[in-house]
Amino acid sequence: MTRAPGLTLGVVGGGQLGRMLGEAAAPLGVEVVVSDPTPDAPAAPVVRDQVVGGFDDEATLRELGERADYLTFEIELADPDVLERVGRETETPVHPRPETLRTIQDKLVQKRRLRDAGVPVPAFRGVDSAGELREALDELGYPAMLKARQGGYDGRGNVPVHGPDDVEDAFAALDGPAMVEEFVDFERELAVMGCVGVDGRDTFPVTETIHEEEILREMVAPARAPAKVRERARGVAGDVLDVMTGRGVYGIELFETRDGQILLNEIAPRPHNSGHWTIEGCHTSQFEQHVRAVCGMPLGTTAQRAPTATANILGDVDGRQEASLAGLDAALRTDALAVHWYGKREVYRLRKMGHLTLSTDRERDALLGSVREVRDALTFE
Amino acid sequence: MTRAPGLTLGVVGGGQLGRMLGEAAAPLGVEVVVSDPTPDAPAAPVVRDQVVGGFDDEATLRELGERADYLTFEIELADPDVLERVGRETETPVHPRPETLRTIQDKLVQKRRLRDAGVPVPAFRGVDSAGELREALDELGYPAMLKARQGGYDGRGNVPVHGPDDVEDAFAALDGPAMVEEFVDFERELAVMGCVGVDGRDTFPVTETIHEEEILREMVAPARAPAKVRERARGVAGDVLDVMTGRGVYGIELFETRDGQILLNEIAPRPHNSGHWTIEGCHTSQFEQHVRAVCGMPLGTTAQRAPTATANILGDVDGRQEASLAGLDAALRTDALAVHWYGKREVYRLRKMGHLTLSTDRERDALLGSVREVRDALTFE
Repeated sequence: MTRAPGLTLGVVGGGQLGRMLGEAAAPLGVEVVVSDPTPDAPAAPVVRDQVVGGFDDEATLRELGERADYLTFEIELADPDVLERVGRETETPVHPRPETLRTIQDKLVQKRRLRDAGVPVPAFRGVDSAGELREALDELGYPAMLKARQGGYDGRGNVPVHGPDDVEDAFAALDGPAMVEEFVDFERELAVMGCVGVDGRDTFPVTETIHEEEILREMVAPARAPAKVRERARGVAGDVLDVMTGRGVYGIELFETRDGQILLNEIAPRPHNSGHWTIEGCHTSQFEQHVRAVCGMPLGTTAQRAPTATANILGDVDGRQEASLAGLDAALRTDALAVHWYGKREVYRLRKMGHLTLSTDRERDALLGSVREVRDALTFE
Repeated sequence: MTRAPGLTLGVVGGGQLGRMLGEAAAPLGVEVVVSDPTPDAPAAPVVRDQVVGGFDDEATLRELGERADYLTFEIELADPDVLERVGRETETPVHPRPETLRTIQDKLVQKRRLRDAGVPVPAFRGVDSAGELREALDELGYPAMLKARQGGYDGRGNVPVHGPDDVEDAFAALDGPAMVEEFVDFERELAVMGCVGVDGRDTFPVTETIHEEEILREMVAPARAPAKVRERARGVAGDVLDVMTGRGVYGIELFETRDGQILLNEIAPRPHNSGHWTIEGCHTSQFEQHVRAVCGMPLGTTAQRAPTATANILGDVDGRQEASLAGLDAALRTDALAVHWYGKREVYRLRKMGHLTLSTDRERDALLGSVREVRDALTFE
């Protein structure tokens, strides 16, 4: 049985995900301590404490482990070896398991594991040189997406290869172990938040994600895909969860192909931007679900409350400057619109600064239109 | 125009109301600092900081004023004179205004002000001696409720007077300036959360409140009263707001008489237990609304999302002991049930330790039955 309220959850990373984990943990009576190299990280003002230190710094993680009943991470830059050692030495369970993090950190290893488990993935090859890239593309055809095996996110580390003339430059741009993947001509991009708890596994309703320059801009739930396709997407997400070890929420990004098939794109072993809509859109948010799962509490329902659309507030300035947002009053005046500000003091181009959510019984196209309109009226000054 | 996110709100009091204000402020980008005489008060782990010091301690409130852009209070024990002086000297606006707090702190002054403004109130008299009490009751009749003018809450400071033989003992039990009020034979007790913002005033849907031993046990929204009665209740609440000065949320407790009339019971110049259901039940919770109002942001909609029932988790032990709750797993497994734990380390009889909310499209009787059943299965061990 769950211990009475009063658990402490240690979170490696104190960005917006750590902040929203803290917001969700408080009503459950779970205290959060985060670690982050940047002093006064976004999560700091809403959690019990921040330990200042690197994501792979052993002393930092050990302090976190000593203070916490459970350890988790909100960023893939956490070091799985250090996490494993610290968890063992401080007798603090780590969820998801460090081995899952290790698998996911390497995109090639991730894809192989999933393919071998029967999860549908785009055709791919590991490539360690421009020559290997060229050979792989003779098979896969052009265009294709070259991806760094390690460290990429929000489109960083991804280079499109349009034709044979691009091969040398593309490989040089990454300059390291990579994989190349066939270009998927998708109908929509989808995401499913999957969750693994002590008492079973479940998936949230399917999110439709809208990217631009490979950065997530808006999401709509349920996705505007046929019911059969959405069901298929949740099925694939369930298969993905079978490959993961350890409890928690997993952000599972998918492609819906032109003929309604589902292909796995990528996995994040943590709450994910594509699940932010669940805060208002579901009875249990992805953040509450992650806290419940990691801390060994029963999972909450994944049922949706109302159609929901969410828009990211991204930095729209050229340099790096103090974050001062104009136009917020109009957002606050919009009926039923929820504002989420991440508390970052500095803004730069395309930095995720906050998001807006509309969750109410209206047509999804209208919700998306409204939330976009409000977001587009915001600007950093 | 509202300043960009980054405001700091100072809250006198760090109990569960301060904690839930902190939870609601974070997504708006408002940081909260609370003051409370008890170190590590319930709000402490979820806000930026706690200043340790008494509710009427001038140095404590000055520190709060110096750190905050706006000041408010979550407890009526705050000293209005000190608040007024500190607000002026640190140039920090205080909402609601200290004069409102002063009026409300004295139940006799409160009732007179409201009666004079045309708000319907039960018949009452100020009484300073047992003799005056007897004279008053010759007019008002028995039974009646004797109330201390200052300091009472959760039924403390209230003494029922059943007949002439009770007069001496009742007055002696309070031993100070008091008021006596006719006993209202009500159909239901109701509450309306009113809000005053920079951009106008509004009221939330009417709550039905269910008390036992004068302590709030459950609430249902909208109240199971006829639509006309609910409309009348919101109307009276609107009239009450006209008497208040300063922005914020006001908890307005009402009686619905047997013939469907509304009488004012009491006012709290702050978010109130009877409004906790708004966290899941409305797009904007009473806590978010209070933060918006005090900080000069536009008010959010008061529209309700779904029928809602809430049950308080009260201490069920005899002594004073460490708070350890058994049975929480069953609550966490209940579909769509939200758990709110206040983080109090000690429990005693009838102490408010947390609450449970069900907000979903079901009959209100069924919601109330379910939330009671789950609550009743919890016990402190």
